[in-house]
Amino acid sequence: MEFQSFLLSFGTSAVIFLVLMFLFTWLSRRPGNVSIYYPNRILKGMDPWEGSSLTRNPFAWIHEAITSSEQDVVNLSGVDTAVYFVFLSTVLGIYAFSGVLLLPILLPLAATDDGIKNDAKNATDTTSKGTFNQLDHLSMGNITKKSPRLWAFLGGVYWISLVTYFLLWKAYNHVSTLRAQALMSDEVKPEQFAILVRDMPSPPDGQTQKEFIDSYFREIYPETFYRSLVVTENNKVNKIWENLEGYKKKLARAEAINAATNTRPTNKTGCLGLVGKQVDSIEYYTELINESVAKLEAEQKAVLAEKQQTAAVVFFTDRVTAASAAQSLHCQMVDQWTVTEAPEPRQLIWKNLNIKLFSRIIRQYFIYFFVALTILFYMIPIAFVAAITTLENLQKIIPFIKPVVKITVIKTILESYLPQIALIIFLAMLPKFLFFLSKTEGIPSQSHAVRATSGKYFYFSVLNVFIGVTLGGTLFDRLKQIEKKPNSIFGVLATSLPKSATFFLTYVALKFFAGYGLELSRIIPLIIFHLKKKYLCKTEAEVKEAWYPGDLGYATRVPGDMLILTITFCYSIIAPLILVFGVIYFGLGWLVLRNQALKVYVPSYESYGRMWPHIHTRILAALFLFQVVMFGYFGTKLFVYTILLVPLIVATLIFGYVCRQKFYAGFQHTALEVASRELKERPDLEEIFRSYIPHSLSSHKPEDHQFKGTVPCAYLR
Amino acid sequence: MEFQSFLLSFGTSAVIFLVLMFLFTWLSRRPGNVSIYYPNRILKGMDPWEGSSLTRNPFAWIHEAITSSEQDVVNLSGVDTAVYFVFLSTVLGIYAFSGVLLLPILLPLAATDDGIKNDAKNATDTTSKGTFNQLDHLSMGNITKKSPRLWAFLGGVYWISLVTYFLLWKAYNHVSTLRAQALMSDEVKPEQFAILVRDMPSPPDGQTQKEFIDSYFREIYPETFYRSLVVTENNKVNKIWENLEGYKKKLARAEAINAATNTRPTNKTGCLGLVGKQVDSIEYYTELINESVAKLEAEQKAVLAEKQQTAAVVFFTDRVTAASAAQSLHCQMVDQWTVTEAPEPRQLIWKNLNIKLFSRIIRQYFIYFFVALTILFYMIPIAFVAAITTLENLQKIIPFIKPVVKITVIKTILESYLPQIALIIFLAMLPKFLFFLSKTEGIPSQSHAVRATSGKYFYFSVLNVFIGVTLGGTLFDRLKQIEKKPNSIFGVLATSLPKSATFFLTYVALKFFAGYGLELSRIIPLIIFHLKKKYLCKTEAEVKEAWYPGDLGYATRVPGDMLILTITFCYSIIAPLILVFGVIYFGLGWLVLRNQALKVYVPSYESYGRMWPHIHTRILAALFLFQVVMFGYFGTKLFVYTILLVPLIVATLIFGYVCRQKFYAGFQHTALEVASRELKERPDLEEIFRSYIPHSLSSHKPEDHQFKGTVPCAYLR
Repeated sequence: MEFQSFLLSFGTSAVIFLVLMFLFTWLSRRPGNVSIYYPNRILKGMDPWEGSSLTRNPFAWIHEAITSSEQDVVNLSGVDTAVYFVFLSTVLGIYAFSGVLLLPILLPLAATDDGIKNDAKNATDTTSKGTFNQLDHLSMGNITKKSPRLWAFLGGVYWISLVTYFLLWKAYNHVSTLRAQALMSDEVKPEQFAILVRDMPSPPDGQTQKEFIDSYFREIYPETFYRSLVVTENNKVNKIWENLEGYKKKLARAEAINAATNTRPTNKTGCLGLVGKQVDSIEYYTELINESVAKLEAEQKAVLAEKQQTAAVVFFTDRVTAASAAQSLHCQMVDQWTVTEAPEPRQLIWKNLNIKLFSRIIRQYFIYFFVALTILFYMIPIAFVAAITTLENLQKIIPFIKPVVKITVIKTILESYLPQIALIIFLAMLPKFLFFLSKTEGIPSQSHAVRATSGKYFYFSVLNVFIGVTLGGTLFDRLKQIEKKPNSIFGVLATSLPKSATFFLTYVALKFFAGYGLELSRIIPLIIFHLKKKYLCKTEAEVKEAWYPGDLGYATRVPGDMLILTITFCYSIIAPLILVFGVIYFGLGWLVLRNQALKVYVPSYESYGRMWPHIHTRILAALFLFQVVMFGYFGTKLFVYTILLVPLIVATLIFGYVCRQKFYAGFQHTALEVASRELKERPDLEEIFRSYIPHSLSSHKPEDHQFKGTVPCAYLR
Repeated sequence: MEFQSFLLSFGTSAVIFLVLMFLFTWLSRRPGNVSIYYPNRILKGMDPWEGSSLTRNPFAWIHEAITSSEQDVVNLSGVDTAVYFVFLSTVLGIYAFSGVLLLPILLPLAATDDGIKNDAKNATDTTSKGTFNQLDHLSMGNITKKSPRLWAFLGGVYWISLVTYFLLWKAYNHVSTLRAQALMSDEVKPEQFAILVRDMPSPPDGQTQKEFIDSYFREIYPETFYRSLVVTENNKVNKIWENLEGYKKKLARAEAINAATNTRPTNKTGCLGLVGKQVDSIEYYTELINESVAKLEAEQKAVLAEKQQTAAVVFFTDRVTAASAAQSLHCQMVDQWTVTEAPEPRQLIWKNLNIKLFSRIIRQYFIYFFVALTILFYMIPIAFVAAITTLENLQKIIPFIKPVVKITVIKTILESYLPQIALIIFLAMLPKFLFFLSKTEGIPSQSHAVRATSGKYFYFSVLNVFIGVTLGGTLFDRLKQIEKKPNSIFGVLATSLPKSATFFLTYVALKFFAGYGLELSRIIPLIIFHLKKKYLCKTEAEVKEAWYPGDLGYATRVPGDMLILTITFCYSIIAPLILVFGVIYFGLGWLVLRNQALKVYVPSYESYGRMWPHIHTRILAALFLFQVVMFGYFGTKLFVYTILLVPLIVATLIFGYVCRQKFYAGFQHTALEVASRELKERPDLEEIFRSYIPHSLSSHKPEDHQFKGTVPCAYLR
């Protein structure tokens, strides 16, 4: 690809972003759209435009984003979101610090050398397939072999690594404090008074699970045990409850239509309301509701009496005991009475709680194996995508696009974006599947499942997108090469890297301009909302459902960022210009998402920053990959001091180990010094207990709450 | 070596053992020796001969050993000793069950084949260097290549493995119960009320470490915190105290001499009592004692006030809180306020307590590296020993032994035992050094240091003795072979094994007959005791010191048994006859040590069976080595179904993983259900606290105990 076409596509992206930004400025001012652009504020009961000047200045949101403090983010969107911003700003810092020193040194060094010309003369392995262009002249590929200029590039690897260590250390410290502050908050949080107990053995004869667990914990904690909530099997009660809720919605809808049109709506009782007897909707649903309520009450009693399972949530009267109990071995046989910190009520995955320890372990390994297979077999289509990236190939396959392609501008844009778009669509299909797999492992909480998904997706994207595209069409030749010399894998990767440099530059540019443009403007949710509101929604509840924004979606967002991070790291010395793109990606991302976090997204859980160790490890893994690849690449330049990179690689491993030793346990557990802070008020233990009862089992009349402490497992989501 | 000479040496050993046993019967009946043969009973305040009939029957001790129950062992010698017997009986069971099925099948199969003859004809790789003998005919080496008889041997590997899994599982379960019972005992044990806190940060200005730790723990445990005992730096106070104790001993000695001879003893004040002024000993030491007591009191005050360090023992008012606290993260920064269960007072290694977490980790890795070096460089002399094993070589080196060697009997015995004796002496030099290294790691308790030593010694003996002797003289040729094909290491080991079979058979035989014979008869301690008593000891305390038996010495005993275990495993199919030797070794060991544990040795600490996971892992490691070696050996027999051993190797790994998951944490921590049992009486917390104060800091007049809760670190040993 020519430098010109690269600049053009970059320009197009920038224009698209600006257009979307102005669209955002205009649309977000219109009162009809307020629930799309300010849902988080509305749900928090705040004035949507509070604090923001009502000017038409398209950069006002940037000002607001920059002036918002971390505390604002914590208050409005929780610790997890604040941690995500620590991630963005840390990476931004790494690239900014690296770029400030490296760009003025490395670019001139590369530009004034002529390794490519020499190589072309010798007709050996060339970058850009022989047609060298301006971009290649700014890359390390243009440095002559064995040149002393390579010292500067080697120094660059050191500088980037040191900056990364320093900022990661600061960030881990900072996030650790954030987490501690959130956990020592003086507000009552139900999950801080509870632990999750699994793998209970069978109770002795004549005892129910509930009585067994109560007697067990009362003996160990005679003074601080409050009560327990046994998990029950309740597919049936859930189904009844879901039907009931459905009828209620339909009744509300029928009543709304009645109020609006003053005619009593009717419906057919058969399949999908298309066949069967025509009935009056309001009467019909009222009757169904009464029936269901009776059925629900009967089933609730049956569930509590007969369907107790081998897991429970146990409540204590104070936070220190709960935090300490969650970390202590209770039973001499480690696979019985296993305890963990209780997740928030809203993120418990009830149906997983009854799965036994060894069953969980087997599931986990089975799923790892399955995911590994998935990653391997996805590689085949990706390699196929990489092979048909050229427009010529595409014209052969789809001949009717020929006339369109002849227009130069479109041709250029297509040429630069086609493979990337294919890739992005491709990747969008995977996360739900991975999330499903992660839940199948038997993980008890939503946030943990999200982390597990994120991890799988990270491996997938690095292995398939990064390594897959880099090795690309020559994959099978390369594999043969690797087969002969197994330890040459990084060398092979290193020599293949320069060829894909422009592909990835464009990929990053598309990601940040188009991706963040769409993110900020929320065009698609806006259109869907207005369509729904106009044609489908009849009740208030339905309208709210239509605009409810969901959360930031870490399961895909983090691995997406991680892929960009890995790409930027690996090219940062080979083609230092990518540092600029990295800075723009993470800088723009910080701004746009700050706006979205403060105004749009509503977090669906709070894990007090437990995502951070996950992120930290993967940043380090990317750094490690970068160092190893550079070791291979310097080797191809026949630079004898390449060996000086080995201590750096070891340093990364040691750094990771030290961080894990110093910080990790603080994220895995609640430290007791944190849990021992005083509360603002005496906790209402009954309320804490009730917050864990699933909807399908809680009585509909709170005043005569007959719940005996046995709780059913409902599919919360 | 001829079969004859093997039988002869075996017979000699048996005779030696019988002689030693009769000697034991005779000596142990003599009242003057009672403190050598029954010290444990004496120290427990029991009648030495209680329960045992005073006949001259030399097998009476065997009857006593067999009829003693596990509970007897726990009562007299603690859980650790009982666990050691579980180890012995488990291994005995493994070999007995294996032998009962395998010997009647494998021996005839081997004896009726003629692989060696065929091989000898073809002049290929032969066992016994071509001079095949009766022993070789009973080994797998005599099976023709590709013979279907190999199926029986393959089945043998499966049978041994399955028996091992089954018995190890039972044993782990049993030991886990033993540990739980000991921990839930209703007697007050100080270590169950305490935790060990290390890595304390610097106190805020104006606070001492002691005040800091008190306020920290009082905030977290307002109701259950009792008090703390800060570790202090007290080399000086220890030295004064040691001097004081020395003077006291000398005074007692002088008084004893005075009482016996009615003349006042004198001594010189200079170096070693050889030069200087002649003084009256009683007066002189009385004066020195008075001086030292004054100095000690002054120094004690100084230490408590000024030399507080960053570690402490913290006491709680109940066992559950202490057990739970020892497992809980206290500080958000994991490298501060680290907690562990407190070891018993007598096994705390005080001088290690002040070492910081990361310093401990660095020390640990440094020592691992150093031990690896030691193991590698010890290999050279061992290879040398293996090279001069032949008597001919020895005659060349030490010509004057020629006439002795000409006597046939002596020649045979020397021939069979010389290399083994060299090896045993050689190995005896190492343990103290390894124990020193283990303590340098910064380990806080004696029992943990013993386990660490045992682990190092195990690696040493398996690597150097077993693999070293097996590869023996051909080591360097073999290394070249391995260098070419790195995954052939087990193959090389497998082909070398048969050649050393007789060496190891003799080694095992020597170990059990001579080793256990000496152990039972206690000839050497007896002689030393009588010499000391006659010529050196003047006071009661000195006599007691002379007969005090010490403990079982797990640091060397367990790795020694492990070496035999590994050898027996690895030869169990190649030369099944070794199973008989394994049964005798562990059976005789069980009998002899049962006697010694009940009557002789006094445990120097109690770790409630924490040695077991260590032993379990190493038994499994030996099994794993056996399976891998067999995989290689079956390969040399060109047996195509060798691949069927792979699932077995995987099964061993899975078995190890499952055991670790199910049992290990129960040995690492105290389970709360165990700690929550009721005590017989209210614990005297003050007494518990005082038991941790080192001798050099405890006041000499208990009634006016001025100790303010700050405790100095004394070198307990």
